[in-house]
Amino acid sequence: MYRTHNCGELRMEHIGQEVTLSGWVQRSRDKGFMMWTDLRDRYGITQLLFNEEKSSKELFETARSLGREDVVKITGVVIERVSKNDKIPTGSIEIEVTALEVLNKSKVPPFTIEDDSDGGDELRMKYRYLDIRRNPVKEKLMFRSNLAIETRKYLASQNFVEVETPVLIKSTPEGARDFVVPSRMNQGQFYALPQSPQTFKQILMVAGMDRYFQIVKCFRDEDLRADRQPEFTQIDCEMAFVTQEEILNTFEGLTKYLFKTTIGVELPDFPRMQYDEAMRRFGSDKPDLRFGMEFCELNDIAQNKGFSVFDNSELVVGICVEGIAEQYSNKDIKKLTEWMQRPQIGAKGLVYVKCNADGTFKSSVGKFFDDAALAEWAQKMGAKAGDMLFVLSGETDKTRKQLNELRLEMGRRLGLMKEGDFKPLWVVDFPLLEWDEELERFHAMHHPFTSPKKEEVERMLNGDHETMKRLKADAYDLVINGSEIGGGSIRIHDRELQSKNFKLLGFTPEEAEAQFGFLLGAFEYGAPPHGGIAFGFDRLCAVMNGSSSIRDFIAFPKNNQGRDMMIDAPSVIHQEQLDELGIGVIEMDVEA
Amino acid sequence: MYRTHNCGELRMEHIGQEVTLSGWVQRSRDKGFMMWTDLRDRYGITQLLFNEEKSSKELFETARSLGREDVVKITGVVIERVSKNDKIPTGSIEIEVTALEVLNKSKVPPFTIEDDSDGGDELRMKYRYLDIRRNPVKEKLMFRSNLAIETRKYLASQNFVEVETPVLIKSTPEGARDFVVPSRMNQGQFYALPQSPQTFKQILMVAGMDRYFQIVKCFRDEDLRADRQPEFTQIDCEMAFVTQEEILNTFEGLTKYLFKTTIGVELPDFPRMQYDEAMRRFGSDKPDLRFGMEFCELNDIAQNKGFSVFDNSELVVGICVEGIAEQYSNKDIKKLTEWMQRPQIGAKGLVYVKCNADGTFKSSVGKFFDDAALAEWAQKMGAKAGDMLFVLSGETDKTRKQLNELRLEMGRRLGLMKEGDFKPLWVVDFPLLEWDEELERFHAMHHPFTSPKKEEVERMLNGDHETMKRLKADAYDLVINGSEIGGGSIRIHDRELQSKNFKLLGFTPEEAEAQFGFLLGAFEYGAPPHGGIAFGFDRLCAVMNGSSSIRDFIAFPKNNQGRDMMIDAPSVIHQEQLDELGIGVIEMDVEA
Repeated sequence: MYRTHNCGELRMEHIGQEVTLSGWVQRSRDKGFMMWTDLRDRYGITQLLFNEEKSSKELFETARSLGREDVVKITGVVIERVSKNDKIPTGSIEIEVTALEVLNKSKVPPFTIEDDSDGGDELRMKYRYLDIRRNPVKEKLMFRSNLAIETRKYLASQNFVEVETPVLIKSTPEGARDFVVPSRMNQGQFYALPQSPQTFKQILMVAGMDRYFQIVKCFRDEDLRADRQPEFTQIDCEMAFVTQEEILNTFEGLTKYLFKTTIGVELPDFPRMQYDEAMRRFGSDKPDLRFGMEFCELNDIAQNKGFSVFDNSELVVGICVEGIAEQYSNKDIKKLTEWMQRPQIGAKGLVYVKCNADGTFKSSVGKFFDDAALAEWAQKMGAKAGDMLFVLSGETDKTRKQLNELRLEMGRRLGLMKEGDFKPLWVVDFPLLEWDEELERFHAMHHPFTSPKKEEVERMLNGDHETMKRLKADAYDLVINGSEIGGGSIRIHDRELQSKNFKLLGFTPEEAEAQFGFLLGAFEYGAPPHGGIAFGFDRLCAVMNGSSSIRDFIAFPKNNQGRDMMIDAPSVIHQEQLDELGIGVIEMDVEA
Repeated sequence: MYRTHNCGELRMEHIGQEVTLSGWVQRSRDKGFMMWTDLRDRYGITQLLFNEEKSSKELFETARSLGREDVVKITGVVIERVSKNDKIPTGSIEIEVTALEVLNKSKVPPFTIEDDSDGGDELRMKYRYLDIRRNPVKEKLMFRSNLAIETRKYLASQNFVEVETPVLIKSTPEGARDFVVPSRMNQGQFYALPQSPQTFKQILMVAGMDRYFQIVKCFRDEDLRADRQPEFTQIDCEMAFVTQEEILNTFEGLTKYLFKTTIGVELPDFPRMQYDEAMRRFGSDKPDLRFGMEFCELNDIAQNKGFSVFDNSELVVGICVEGIAEQYSNKDIKKLTEWMQRPQIGAKGLVYVKCNADGTFKSSVGKFFDDAALAEWAQKMGAKAGDMLFVLSGETDKTRKQLNELRLEMGRRLGLMKEGDFKPLWVVDFPLLEWDEELERFHAMHHPFTSPKKEEVERMLNGDHETMKRLKADAYDLVINGSEIGGGSIRIHDRELQSKNFKLLGFTPEEAEAQFGFLLGAFEYGAPPHGGIAFGFDRLCAVMNGSSSIRDFIAFPKNNQGRDMMIDAPSVIHQEQLDELGIGVIEMDVEA
């Protein structure tokens, strides 16, 4: 037996007991004839005492030879510490060691196993097994495990059945790219890894499963932005015979339950906001409601005053940033303007108005607008002395997006995104379709299975092109602190309507049949009304912990090149494997 | 709102209430002015009453037009049934319908949605969404969901943390074939899908996670025998600082808990049997202990009596089958002998001895053995009058395997594999290595990470070839009713020993480094002693339900050609997809 207790559980009540512990050597303090060593495992740290006078010479010498991260097993007696440490739960006791066995030696680790490590990202990913020994990483993985358990507990209590859907499915090259898997038994054919179990969960509704969920890996072969992973995890859910209202209530219930049980936060009822309103007030379909700084449209008072930039713009819109007028120098404003003009944001310029303490105004457009005019802006935007207004103008959608970036940046600078403050929001009534001006085609705003609102069905089946652009869907996102945590919709359950939607999205009937024939077929055998939602599980973990990176919550993440640095994957495979699969690697142009 | 209640919950106490239900039309009985329709959902069946006299003509006509599997929503009043049906929980009430809405029509399904369907396997797999509506299929999936929940509940209570390991990993072409996934961002390189998370769970032990589990999909590109699937699910577990004894106790605890909570069966303590003993007594490393019919070796009394077949055999071994002597005609024996001679089993012949009621014997080897000699056999095998002995001879391992098949067949024929009877068994002390005479190389009996027993380590590091053949491992299988439910081992946690094992298994140092360098490296940074187990989750579901097929417990299984009949996968993919991945399909020889 390697241990009678773990390194986190011994207390005053154990004093006098002989115990056996195993774990890793965290650090030692050698005082000559006495030596203290911290022994660590997942559960905590226990202090070991080696006393030269009371133990054998060999034992003391072995103790003295221990290095960081060596694995040892000790036996000893629990004694009370002379100087207690109230920062750790075992801080009142220590173990006077009577036997010591080195189970495995460790080389000196390439970075320190401390809460704040000195290891860089790449090094920590390569030695992920050392990184996970660090408390902050370990605790994130344990949080994730606990969050999954609570999710299952809640959904099971609500009659949801967890059903495993297949990982080897069919390629449906819509939206993001599929990972594909060559079939050895069906040569020349490929499976695909699911981007989501969407069609399967709908099939389960047709199958009468009524309430389905799954915590499930999904896969997207996308170019990886900072915080994307080729494999990620969803809480995937679907319900039959439900309205949007019932879905929102069910998953608001889940979210509240998770916050309460895992981080002790009681969330209030979630407000709801229409997509159009979110875009108008925040320029984003996932507004961070931890702070205000709402958009204020100025067309009526700022246009036709002789400033042609505004006059020629579809939208003039601004935000009021409280109390920064005196802090922001011309240089600061210049830098902020340049920040807004970077290609990632693409603003042409940035108009500012300082509301001075004496009631006057200082503005980059003072030439065109006198104090009376600017006072009108300030009043409309609710600005007081000391506040500063930023105004953008241009094409509506673009301008809103740009101002959203500025609003978020100012929120960050002013510390308005407070950790521990959670502001959930349902964004509802998304458009069904998105018109792509460049490709001259519709994309599905959500996905091709999303239903238009009931009152739109007739217009969708019979309307003209312009009507299609304005169709609203029973689609909704759950947003917390500016992150999209979940998204879903009521689905189409009617073959004719689904075929119409495929057609609008540019599928020929043959393509629709080849890719989704099974679903269209299923709709003819008694498909119930149904809808659902999927939560980004990695993202939920991150948001609940106030972390901006999902990677921290994944045990073995991949880097931005999609590589696992620890196992060094992907890798070349044997020619025999390729031969068996009937595929070959195409030689790349050396220039490529 | 589609419903106030589901179709399984209304009782006498609801009488007089107005309710709304939604579901599928199971069947209707039309009595002219009255019509009864069974409405079905996941939760049960509720009888609807349409009364021509009390309802509008349209409603009654619509009701009369309903076909099987149409989806409807009804509103009505709960009334007491005149003739109650005590076979269903809702059998005391019915709904007098006042409003009826057809939500979706259904075509006539290709097979009946009844407990005993008339659909063949292929048809039911193609229309899996209809098959799942059937109670036996639906209940199996719900059982699986519940079993997963209870598994997680138990393991969490034992301090196990569920950690998701990656699905896109590295190909390590050992044993079964890997499915591979071409990488677009790293062209010419491939991920592989995990055959198990083996190395990752060991890495998690090195990482200090202490107790890991995961209910996880695994993948093997094997030629599919009747009851294999290319993707299957494991309960995968690993523990640090443990002995084999602690692992067996932990997972015996899990198994008992699962049987108790999901099917109400209290299992006794699990007996343990050494591998060698299991082979000797049952000719199998997964003996079905629901019945005896143990092997009895006869070398000492059956050899050197002039029967050269026996004399030239390494082993003479038989079983005693109770009470069948009089039933088995010469023709029956001939057919049984032919059954044993099929290539799948490959016995050369089958010796029988009938123990007649009058104390005489009738045997196929009566020429060589007189009644006194056969009486000696009968005595050794514990046979009584009316019993029949079957004896095989030949090379030890082959003969045992053949006799195992015969034992199981006789058990089946005599109904000794009783449903609801569960006989768990730990088989322990497996050999570490298996010598392949043909390829003249060792295979790992379990897998390359299995540790020899502690007392064998020295011999393994320094022993000769013959020593290697006899090494025993700390490896164990959990067997229930002749099915291997789980298997595991204590793992090697020492770099030198692991390298030695790779060498024995035919890896060059370079190959070992390329494939498992990360693990060998991890062993140098303080790897703790560890071990674990993996349960076949699909198999566990099947065995607990007395089912012989895992396919019944998989929502969307693949057929023997690895195809999903419903979605028709795998399939050809677009040339652009191949181009993006930098791979090509090799044209097959038309003869192939």
